[in-house]
Amino acid sequence: MLNAGVDIGGTNIKLALVETGGDDPVIEARAAFLFDQAGCNLLCQRIADSIGSMLRDVGCEAEDLGHIGLALPGTIDQSGEVLIHAYNMGYHNVPIKKVLQNHFPGTQIKMINDAKAAAQAELKAGVFKGLDTALLLTIGTGLGAGLIMGGKVFNGGQNRGSEIGHMPFLKGGIPCTCGLTGCLERYTSATRIAELGKENMGEEYADAKAVKDAAEAGDKKAQEILDIYIDDLATAIGGLCSAFDPQRVALGGGFSAAGDILYAPLKKLVAERNFFKARYDIVPARFRNDAGVIGAALL
Amino acid sequence: MLNAGVDIGGTNIKLALVETGGDDPVIEARAAFLFDQAGCNLLCQRIADSIGSMLRDVGCEAEDLGHIGLALPGTIDQSGEVLIHAYNMGYHNVPIKKVLQNHFPGTQIKMINDAKAAAQAELKAGVFKGLDTALLLTIGTGLGAGLIMGGKVFNGGQNRGSEIGHMPFLKGGIPCTCGLTGCLERYTSATRIAELGKENMGEEYADAKAVKDAAEAGDKKAQEILDIYIDDLATAIGGLCSAFDPQRVALGGGFSAAGDILYAPLKKLVAERNFFKARYDIVPARFRNDAGVIGAALL
Repeated sequence: MLNAGVDIGGTNIKLALVETGGDDPVIEARAAFLFDQAGCNLLCQRIADSIGSMLRDVGCEAEDLGHIGLALPGTIDQSGEVLIHAYNMGYHNVPIKKVLQNHFPGTQIKMINDAKAAAQAELKAGVFKGLDTALLLTIGTGLGAGLIMGGKVFNGGQNRGSEIGHMPFLKGGIPCTCGLTGCLERYTSATRIAELGKENMGEEYADAKAVKDAAEAGDKKAQEILDIYIDDLATAIGGLCSAFDPQRVALGGGFSAAGDILYAPLKKLVAERNFFKARYDIVPARFRNDAGVIGAALL
Repeated sequence: MLNAGVDIGGTNIKLALVETGGDDPVIEARAAFLFDQAGCNLLCQRIADSIGSMLRDVGCEAEDLGHIGLALPGTIDQSGEVLIHAYNMGYHNVPIKKVLQNHFPGTQIKMINDAKAAAQAELKAGVFKGLDTALLLTIGTGLGAGLIMGGKVFNGGQNRGSEIGHMPFLKGGIPCTCGLTGCLERYTSATRIAELGKENMGEEYADAKAVKDAAEAGDKKAQEILDIYIDDLATAIGGLCSAFDPQRVALGGGFSAAGDILYAPLKKLVAERNFFKARYDIVPARFRNDAGVIGAALL
């Protein structure tokens, strides 16, 4: 079955045609363009053009598609029709599914939150295959969380989502984009490392990778920043393990490729910071840049 | 079906024979005794005596029992055989099921965490009947949490429990009995109200009900304490609603009967403190003192 996956972000739009029939999903074609603050009509026009051009590349037509899946950085309404809030796109109450449907009248279109799409990709073909209870934390601008419960991606009891990144972490702490304060994602996102890098090391370290690279090269200040960050991340993951006791925890996003400098101290601290004092299996996610397109195609 | 439910606490042991065959569970006999720091052998002897005496009262024998359910204030091992930790009983790695089995060789014995037993009672016959996703918070010495997911009581992905009360709430905050600091239950238990009462109003207010009664009688200090407590409880419940988006939240424990002085401000604040800015259905649990015995009988 050939499906289209579209990963819509506040910076880039990534698209792929994915063959989902086999044991492992195979990307048959790719496309990408800049979001560029486009409105919904223009965005859907560009998505339709990109899908059309990928289909021509593989010698197929829209009728050959099983479905088009959209992974979106925001909240989708309970009926799955409208993008309610995508703060970093400036989209609020946008009927993106309906508008795109005009370009593909005969094709099923499905929407999913991007963190849920990534969890879906890991569940179907990645590090969560066969698991009942697992947790994916995507470390990026925020902290996207994809919870697997009962062998399925959990989207909240009322189908509005599962916004684990907005649970309290430090009551009365740093204000969050969501309007609350001290949210877990304010302490555990890649943004947090960049903020600490900028404050303590200067403008050129306003980037998680720059801080990590400096720490690996032996910079003490950079290592201190990582220590603070990993301590907070371990406290957060430990608490989530107390609540969910997951069979596996996976980290996604660019920073999840950090390797031993991240995973060795993190695993040790999480084992101390959970109620069961258990050692948890914490691994990098299989799909990083392709998590959104593959998850959307696998819906 | 006649089952025995035993609710084992650090102060009291409560027992009941419960007819579970009808639409609603019916308590046919009751018994209770003080825990009195008894060891496991003595405790099981007393439980066996009490069940025996209740059976005689209703004219039945042990063979007539469907099962004996034990609700325990602690962690049960993954196989469901051993009580690993019950801090406020001083019980660690106690094979209570095996010891009690010697008294009832032909009867099935099941163990469950007490907060999970209470959630089971609400699911089968109380305010969670027919729901898929719901959250019971039992406000007592700690904060017991019973999460309903997929229409079942969730006991963690590795069957060790779901210790929501030990998620972080105020990183680096008040030390908790579990060895961590700033746990959610340290700010939202009835113990917290008693601590604030004692600190600010004197020894005779080292009790949640005394503080609530004083606030209802117009005492300003007592009202301030409740305001602080309800603010923290709302932040905690708001975060749990962001994560689970439950169809209903129920409060158990003695303080859950507090009425409007608790529920009116709580509902308003929770609506502000969740990611979806949604108004949640927050109600008192149906079963309070009988939650443990009924839940254990309904396993």
